[in-house]
Amino acid sequence: MVGEFLVPLQLSDAEIQAMVEGINLLWVLVVTFLIFFMHAGFAMLEAGQVRSKNVANQLTKNLLTWSVGVTMFFLIGAGVSSMVGSITGGGGEYSLVGALTAGSAGWVSWLFGAVFAMTAATIVSGAVAGRAKLRAYMTYTILLAAVIYPVVTGLTWAGGFLASVAGVGFHDFAGGMIVHGMGGVAGLTAAWMLGPRLERYNADGSANVIPGHSITFAVLGTLVLAFGWYGFNVGTAASVLTITDAGVVELGAFSYVGRVAMATTLAMAMGAIGASAMSLLQTGKVDTLYVANGLLAGLVGITAFPDTATWWGAMVVGLLAGGQLPIVFGFVEKRLKIDDVCAVFPVHGSAGMLGALAYPFLSVGAISTSAIVAQVAGVALITGWTVVATATVFGVLKALGQMRVTPEHEREGLDISEHGVETYPEFSDGDEMTVPDSS
Amino acid sequence: MVGEFLVPLQLSDAEIQAMVEGINLLWVLVVTFLIFFMHAGFAMLEAGQVRSKNVANQLTKNLLTWSVGVTMFFLIGAGVSSMVGSITGGGGEYSLVGALTAGSAGWVSWLFGAVFAMTAATIVSGAVAGRAKLRAYMTYTILLAAVIYPVVTGLTWAGGFLASVAGVGFHDFAGGMIVHGMGGVAGLTAAWMLGPRLERYNADGSANVIPGHSITFAVLGTLVLAFGWYGFNVGTAASVLTITDAGVVELGAFSYVGRVAMATTLAMAMGAIGASAMSLLQTGKVDTLYVANGLLAGLVGITAFPDTATWWGAMVVGLLAGGQLPIVFGFVEKRLKIDDVCAVFPVHGSAGMLGALAYPFLSVGAISTSAIVAQVAGVALITGWTVVATATVFGVLKALGQMRVTPEHEREGLDISEHGVETYPEFSDGDEMTVPDSS
Amino acid sequence: MVGEFLVPLQLSDAEIQAMVEGINLLWVLVVTFLIFFMHAGFAMLEAGQVRSKNVANQLTKNLLTWSVGVTMFFLIGAGVSSMVGSITGGGGEYSLVGALTAGSAGWVSWLFGAVFAMTAATIVSGAVAGRAKLRAYMTYTILLAAVIYPVVTGLTWAGGFLASVAGVGFHDFAGGMIVHGMGGVAGLTAAWMLGPRLERYNADGSANVIPGHSITFAVLGTLVLAFGWYGFNVGTAASVLTITDAGVVELGAFSYVGRVAMATTLAMAMGAIGASAMSLLQTGKVDTLYVANGLLAGLVGITAFPDTATWWGAMVVGLLAGGQLPIVFGFVEKRLKIDDVCAVFPVHGSAGMLGALAYPFLSVGAISTSAIVAQVAGVALITGWTVVATATVFGVLKALGQMRVTPEHEREGLDISEHGVETYPEFSDGDEMTVPDSS
Repeated sequence: MVGEFLVPLQLSDAEIQAMVEGINLLWVLVVTFLIFFMHAGFAMLEAGQVRSKNVANQLTKNLLTWSVGVTMFFLIGAGVSSMVGSITGGGGEYSLVGALTAGSAGWVSWLFGAVFAMTAATIVSGAVAGRAKLRAYMTYTILLAAVIYPVVTGLTWAGGFLASVAGVGFHDFAGGMIVHGMGGVAGLTAAWMLGPRLERYNADGSANVIPGHSITFAVLGTLVLAFGWYGFNVGTAASVLTITDAGVVELGAFSYVGRVAMATTLAMAMGAIGASAMSLLQTGKVDTLYVANGLLAGLVGITAFPDTATWWGAMVVGLLAGGQLPIVFGFVEKRLKIDDVCAVFPVHGSAGMLGALAYPFLSVGAISTSAIVAQVAGVALITGWTVVATATVFGVLKALGQMRVTPEHEREGLDISEHGVETYPEFSDGDEMTVPDSS
Repeated sequence: MVGEFLVPLQLSDAEIQAMVEGINLLWVLVVTFLIFFMHAGFAMLEAGQVRSKNVANQLTKNLLTWSVGVTMFFLIGAGVSSMVGSITGGGGEYSLVGALTAGSAGWVSWLFGAVFAMTAATIVSGAVAGRAKLRAYMTYTILLAAVIYPVVTGLTWAGGFLASVAGVGFHDFAGGMIVHGMGGVAGLTAAWMLGPRLERYNADGSANVIPGHSITFAVLGTLVLAFGWYGFNVGTAASVLTITDAGVVELGAFSYVGRVAMATTLAMAMGAIGASAMSLLQTGKVDTLYVANGLLAGLVGITAFPDTATWWGAMVVGLLAGGQLPIVFGFVEKRLKIDDVCAVFPVHGSAGMLGALAYPFLSVGAISTSAIVAQVAGVALITGWTVVATATVFGVLKALGQMRVTPEHEREGLDISEHGVETYPEFSDGDEMTVPDSS
Repeated sequence: MVGEFLVPLQLSDAEIQAMVEGINLLWVLVVTFLIFFMHAGFAMLEAGQVRSKNVANQLTKNLLTWSVGVTMFFLIGAGVSSMVGSITGGGGEYSLVGALTAGSAGWVSWLFGAVFAMTAATIVSGAVAGRAKLRAYMTYTILLAAVIYPVVTGLTWAGGFLASVAGVGFHDFAGGMIVHGMGGVAGLTAAWMLGPRLERYNADGSANVIPGHSITFAVLGTLVLAFGWYGFNVGTAASVLTITDAGVVELGAFSYVGRVAMATTLAMAMGAIGASAMSLLQTGKVDTLYVANGLLAGLVGITAFPDTATWWGAMVVGLLAGGQLPIVFGFVEKRLKIDDVCAVFPVHGSAGMLGALAYPFLSVGAISTSAIVAQVAGVALITGWTVVATATVFGVLKALGQMRVTPEHEREGLDISEHGVETYPEFSDGDEMTVPDSS
């Protein structure tokens, strides 16, 4: 690919900058593709955890979350994030249409931001499975991609209020709270507004388990997500090389990229182990979906601070994030009586909060009071905003009678009522599925 | 990995060339792997869209398309492409066995070309599902990989006739027409030669819908394809860095790589939206497979010119490519009465043509008459060659009685008759599936 | 991303080292992620090849193999490998806790080693499907990750006895024997210790075929594995650039990376072709699972020497590795009467041995007697150690009555007895599956 040259090569400043930029762009593109692939993971994880009569509906929502969401984030959301960052963070210049005119390198940055945004968006679909109208879900997704999530990134990564709170700023390396916590809280709020699926609870308040239709698809989705998560976390160490103000080329985020990779791996592993152990304690058996979702909760737990976690800190936060999963899932199901179908709150919400709050205690260096204050502030503000915004949107949809499908459509399944298709036309008998045992 | 040195480092020309070559090789290898992974996407997409009695047949064809095809492309196809490029493009030197002796960097280039070739090859299998003999399909695949597709790349990317047609040359950045359009046209031609599946049409000419066995696998395949497509399109911006004739290191195709990534993303999104909107218009519901295939059609539509598309141009071509899908599918099914099982013509064929023809109108810079002429010439020549070559091969197979399985084998399913296996031995009852509603 | 600088850039030694290290780290991370993704491939391949009543068990084992195994490899295994390498290889310094204190670049290297280790570990689960107790499997996995596999890498890649045997050392580029051969031998030994599944053999010694529940998942797994295998083989060419002792920057392993990619591709293709041909010869039909597993056997076959294989050598070893699959599978099933459920020995074991032994004959350069001796020594020592260690562990478990589930639990399926779940609650009738035809 490179031939012989007669002219001697002397690297000028511009050439060195081109090499550094090329390497950094290469890395950011690769990890962006990996994070995009997490949509396949979410699609399979959620499809596996819903009834067969609602699978196509879940898949359609996943396809449209990406398609509609990324378009909205291009046209509106990226600008809103920049505006909120500027207004709440000191007032630099911003552009509401910066994504449209970004140019080549800017579009890479935009897409890198967009795949994080769409991760937050798609989490919600797992919580509202089986009874939300497609138009209600899409309306919420449009608002999430255009405003609700961009406000969160505006307050944080775009330099807004939380970026310097308590003097040290809210630390959330790859979005344990900003992306996953936000998505999990939004999902719980939406599921609460919607109410549970029919027959999910008995008249006496006891809960019925409605098992998903395929553990195989759910575990496939889990492993696809774990693969993409290496892009998500390790890729957030986005600068392979950097050029200092003094003009020196050195490793950028890649000076600590190995720590990010190690911490992500150990927390993921301990998440699965923690959920397995808790499952064994509770029932004497190792529930497959707890293992899978525990692995994901371990990943969520470390996502706020893989850049600073000690190796034992990564193991501890993973163990806690996995171990809390069965407990929080039971609390949401039996106490709050919220029907969070795919367990998105225990996996993304509470695990995301846990990780953000654990950061000051499990990182290299001394424990700092300012950091504790900043982390509490970040978790509280993001949670508060997300609950209020989500409840408002679904409240309006409810008032308009557009939130939930009819009981007839819910019993028949959303695949037929909303999409006119059967996911498995050769395998289903067309009858309504009976709900099995109570728990 | 890098220790301390006593000898001062001075970058010589050879060292700078090594760095540039290493970075470029790294990128090309990564995107090649991504494009290879599209085979998993095609396998799942097609498997999901066929009856359960034909799934193993479809999967076997996918495995063998890659295996036999890439071997033929190594031994013969790459040389044919180079020969055709030379003969029709001005007559430089070429080698029919260049792939065998390419050497390390040359083998990377060969493999990069091979994964594009195999994409074209595998598209055809979706159109001929459920009734082609395995030996017929494999014969065609061998000829496609050895001759039919290499003629197309010879005429274009290898510098042949179309590379300079109308003074400006046929513009097809990543193979919207060369790969996808060619594959879609070949599939339609093959399906036409084979005739429809039994019971696909009634005596009065009306069509029966024969739904595939799993929308879940089809959507999984869609998302795997979209992931791989980032390699396909963005990876075609293959040179991270380049060294100019004057010996200056600068960004190569990476100077516009962000545009490619942005345009690919927006067209994909608008493809899903366009197909959803058309589905809503036609039936009042959002058909899941139209959304999935629309997303892919949007990707096909932009593949000819993500390097030059404006952001709104990418959105327009995606919307059109998605929107035309239900219309063209209906036209092929009801007017042409061709049984294109997996809709490969509307997804790859017509969307590929659309994108190639839209290039002059939706790109940065002024609209050029020469470009319009070149695009029309490219689409016409590639279509013509593909139809003639494909029809000839299947015509000979038909004359030899080797094209299509017997009606008994078709009813029983190709899994048993051609492969001696059942895909889902625990779930099928062994009876022939009944064909449901007519449309 | 890179701004303007007033200070002229002059690349110092440290800066050049940073650039080389950044590029190399980038590549190693990407391929590590690809190799990790092979777990999704193994999970799907194995899930597809077991009965539906045992799918969740298989998936849980896959999730826990990674989670528990990688933790053990971090805490213990990496240190054991280093210790064994030092003690048997000449006695340099080593640390039993080196992984804990490795630092950023060291953690990347550790994770790169860990994904190879976990590949060896997960192969075993396919052989012991359907009757091993979860606690027995996990006990073995812990010992494999902490000791059994690290001894093998200690003897080889870590510089131990086999690294210099016969003067030239055992050549195994990416682990055809060290990883796959070892895993396949371990699987066969474990399956032999466990005994066959109930009703797998009749009283007269004839075998019953117990087909897996989904060829679709099995083929999906195959293609995911092939995708990850590019990381496995091509990624073992781990240094894009290197700095020589004289301080010269040049291509490192990337000077032959194209050969690795070409050889991997051709051997994979010929593996599928070889198994297809043998299947046709034996039964007159092309068995889908033979094609899929043949493709994998071709990959295993080349893994020991893609760095040195001639193009025709890669084709030959792939053809042999694919062709031996049906023969060795039949030998294990009918002669040895070992119930290797997912055919891990013919795919990973015998194909791995074949490739390691074929290296001296199918590589560039002259055939060397020393190399033949070294390869035989390596295959023999790794096989011997693996058989003894595996048989010992399962022997102890058997003596403790902890090896195998009860016949009642086996009939009911391990999903319910060990995990309390049903994989497909809507599709199974709860009855025990009947075992079909005998072969």
